Amino acid sequence: MNGLPYPSGTSYEYPLIIKKLFSATLNCHPSGTVTYRDRITYTYGTFRERVVRLAGALAALGVKKGDVVGIVDYNSHRFLEGFFAVPMMGAVFATFNWRLGSDEFAHTISHASPKVLLVHEDFLGRIRKIRKSLAGVEHLVLIRDSEHQARLPRSVAGEYESMLGKAPEGFDFADFDENTPATLYYTAGTTGLPKGVSFTHRQIVLQTLSLGIALSSYSSEMRFSSQDVFMPLIPMWSEHAWGMPYLATMLGAKQVYSGKYDTECLLKLFGTHKITFSVCVPTALHMILEHPLSMGLDFSSCKLIVTGARLPEKLARAALLRGIRVTSAFGLAEACPLVAMSHLKGDLDESVTEEKIRILGSAGLPAPLVEVGVVDTVGNFKKNDGLSQGQVVIRAPWLAREYHRDPRKTKDLWKHGWLYTGDIGFINKDGYLCITERVRSVIKSGGEWISHLKIENLVRKHKGVKDAAVVGVPNEVWGERPVVLVQISEEYAGVLDSAKLAEFMQTFVETGDLPKYALPDRYVIVDAIPKTGVQKIDMRVIKQKYGSMMESGD
Amino acid sequence: MNGLPYPSGTSYEYPLIIKKLFSATLNCHPSGTVTYRDRITYTYGTFRERVVRLAGALAALGVKKGDVVGIVDYNSHRFLEGFFAVPMMGAVFATFNWRLGSDEFAHTISHASPKVLLVHEDFLGRIRKIRKSLAGVEHLVLIRDSEHQARLPRSVAGEYESMLGKAPEGFDFADFDENTPATLYYTAGTTGLPKGVSFTHRQIVLQTLSLGIALSSYSSEMRFSSQDVFMPLIPMWSEHAWGMPYLATMLGAKQVYSGKYDTECLLKLFGTHKITFSVCVPTALHMILEHPLSMGLDFSSCKLIVTGARLPEKLARAALLRGIRVTSAFGLAEACPLVAMSHLKGDLDESVTEEKIRILGSAGLPAPLVEVGVVDTVGNFKKNDGLSQGQVVIRAPWLAREYHRDPRKTKDLWKHGWLYTGDIGFINKDGYLCITERVRSVIKSGGEWISHLKIENLVRKHKGVKDAAVVGVPNEVWGERPVVLVQISEEYAGVLDSAKLAEFMQTFVETGDLPKYALPDRYVIVDAIPKTGVQKIDMRVIKQKYGSMMESGD
Repeated sequence: MNGLPYPSGTSYEYPLIIKKLFSATLNCHPSGTVTYRDRITYTYGTFRERVVRLAGALAALGVKKGDVVGIVDYNSHRFLEGFFAVPMMGAVFATFNWRLGSDEFAHTISHASPKVLLVHEDFLGRIRKIRKSLAGVEHLVLIRDSEHQARLPRSVAGEYESMLGKAPEGFDFADFDENTPATLYYTAGTTGLPKGVSFTHRQIVLQTLSLGIALSSYSSEMRFSSQDVFMPLIPMWSEHAWGMPYLATMLGAKQVYSGKYDTECLLKLFGTHKITFSVCVPTALHMILEHPLSMGLDFSSCKLIVTGARLPEKLARAALLRGIRVTSAFGLAEACPLVAMSHLKGDLDESVTEEKIRILGSAGLPAPLVEVGVVDTVGNFKKNDGLSQGQVVIRAPWLAREYHRDPRKTKDLWKHGWLYTGDIGFINKDGYLCITERVRSVIKSGGEWISHLKIENLVRKHKGVKDAAVVGVPNEVWGERPVVLVQISEEYAGVLDSAKLAEFMQTFVETGDLPKYALPDRYVIVDAIPKTGVQKIDMRVIKQKYGSMMESGD
Repeated sequence: MNGLPYPSGTSYEYPLIIKKLFSATLNCHPSGTVTYRDRITYTYGTFRERVVRLAGALAALGVKKGDVVGIVDYNSHRFLEGFFAVPMMGAVFATFNWRLGSDEFAHTISHASPKVLLVHEDFLGRIRKIRKSLAGVEHLVLIRDSEHQARLPRSVAGEYESMLGKAPEGFDFADFDENTPATLYYTAGTTGLPKGVSFTHRQIVLQTLSLGIALSSYSSEMRFSSQDVFMPLIPMWSEHAWGMPYLATMLGAKQVYSGKYDTECLLKLFGTHKITFSVCVPTALHMILEHPLSMGLDFSSCKLIVTGARLPEKLARAALLRGIRVTSAFGLAEACPLVAMSHLKGDLDESVTEEKIRILGSAGLPAPLVEVGVVDTVGNFKKNDGLSQGQVVIRAPWLAREYHRDPRKTKDLWKHGWLYTGDIGFINKDGYLCITERVRSVIKSGGEWISHLKIENLVRKHKGVKDAAVVGVPNEVWGERPVVLVQISEEYAGVLDSAKLAEFMQTFVETGDLPKYALPDRYVIVDAIPKTGVQKIDMRVIKQKYGSMMESGD
């Protein structure tokens, strides 16, 4: 121990850096394990070694403090290793949504500009196609799940496992300023290209602590502890999988990552590893409950955080009746994402009451250190009376300071010192936040956000389309589904119909411009798209006039 | 809402200040209550009003940012109000141990130099006696429990309740730097005068979050949640009552404060308010379990943090058999005080096993963000093998940066960037810390620390005493009790005996120089005090030679 930097009497200035979440655990929870699919299970001791080796391997590729390292992968232990190793080097770990259309996908990687990109073999083809637009990417590292040791393609600098194998056993993770950026991910918003949000070490450490308390110190039924077995059903490229990998690691809990999404495989992992804690979107919960394999599973020790969209009451009831303890959580990509959780206060007992279902479906109570308010259009706060609606605004220590390299959009995010969520809601006298709608609504479908504008722009590419408006229509399974109102041009009257439009839009899925989940369910031909005085699409009139047509099935 | 300080696009820089713990709660937990003895119960709504009024009343007395406000009181809602109102003004809340002897008591107040001192009527006489040495104290505010409205003494500026009644209903608690000092208390150490330790807003907020997780996210049996009813059995002037008032307030839990210590009253409060969570020293636990009134109480929903001294195995077993879930916690005054907690890992079931008892008696696992090591005399770290002993050193975001205005003693506290606890211990391979002894041991008796040096110095004041050594002797009830080895001078041989020495020492209790609990149990007359080569008292030889004499009862 070199005493030089700290003469006697000089205290240690403790920075809130991710290393501190990591080091605290590893001495105390040697029996914790990390599992990837049915392929690998290793202890926290091995986890530590691999994090050290990953840092060494990246350093050998030239990664330095401030550089960006990206990943394109399914949920895996590689994400977990990256969440620690990369920020602990002082670099930024960027996670990418490979479900995006080609343009957006290429944009996110090009915009983040990682020096090294870790790519699962399934996505290497896509990356090669857009390689030219990724000028900043110096090295690709291949992630392989397949056993066979085929020759590495010339385009990649190395393979993940063999690079770890060759890396040194030691790495000096130094202390640095807690305000150093640690992570970066992209949020698909309402308009145009995905926006980047970056979070610092301080923000992630504080959110991990608050999340720990939000999950364990309130309601009687929900608790996440070091004795839980955690497996996320949401993708790790989004919102750090709700920050759970950091919390689970800090507590030394067992973690399971499921790889390529496949309900059957997920359910097997549930059974084999006795998963007790997960985070999912309502659609995934619906699929699990409906799947024949799930009938044989005992969910009685299972706790589930439902996020991404409002938990439908019917679904909450179905889950409770199967013994799953469900809680809604309200988050935002811009909030890292923790905002609120629908804890049950006091004496709401184990029976399935209406009151309980109603609370479980609310956005809930703000997590520790989160301040929530609803404001009118000029920023005046409304009363917490359960009636007064307004835009939901928040303050917390872990909110994105800006949209990454986008000061223009940042201006709409931060006003009067509050982050404007774009959600409309109210707060009741017990402090529960309820979200009622979006200011400029996007369509939330199965946990994915679908942009109106994106679909409208693609539909309008057809020569026969004079005008179009996309509407989110309530859907039992998906939450919402997109339906398009189309005004046909005179030349195409009687020629262009719903079926042809559907064919036309399908081509954009083939080209990768439109994710499959964003394909509209229906096309309703109308004489004219109702507009407001300022030529904005008039949703109110559309719902009145065409509501029943949009909702009727095929 | 004035948007001026925050133009659009400018994010809010969220400081970790105590106000944030306070404001988060009050919107969400209107049903939480604060109770003082059998005298008053009010809601969190009233609590907020009283905190605002207290700040206003103190401001009217001239308290400004950076000033110190002190309190001399029993455990009460006044402490709780002060813990929030004073730091939220930017001032420092100093809490004083009225059990100290007069000199130390006067020293602590004079050293802290509060501008305003809140004094319970029971202690006004003592304060008046030392008033001259408290030059910095501009105003005394009287705290009255008695109903009768006697005239206020001229020495006081006002009475607490009536000042709150007259204070304005609004107070602007501004944001400020999170590194602003918030609290100050004094630790009775091994040598000489008590030492002051001060903590910043950031430190208290971070410790509150870590404490919340330490209490709720590990073992199966211990959990503190918003649904608990909290009453401390340790004094609030020490270590913020283990930080629990901050955590309980943040979570909106019910809080009960018991006033003047009285086992019967405590037990009644336990029954009336169905206390589910407390913090105490082993002696208090022993007294409760032995008290006839406790036999009728149902402790089955009661969780107890035992701190201040090692939890004897016999006592742990007795508590478990009564249904009380006990957990040891290891803290230090210099650590605000959270260091570690003896969580049960994994599958230690509900039965009372030897393994369980052993773990409950250890110092435990470090709380989140706490780093613990044991080092040799030159600062090299030992292995966590359960065998290698060394001095326990710690790092955490909430450690005292220094002894208040005492750079000399600070040099022994901070070395090589680690806080040296003065405790000797080891860490086992599961990460559990076990404390074995003090480096320069003090006597821990009923949660109080008794200084060897202090007693030795007083004994030596007797003309007939040639030399003296104080030894801590194990005691079933108190943990340890002081016993004095005395070498009588030749002139007093046969004249001075144990009884006369006891009488002599009693006079120092009367004068207030020695706390009653520090009166030695026995005086053993010896030919010479065993010394080491460097003339230090040789405890090893003393224990070998006089062990049985010291332990034999009167």
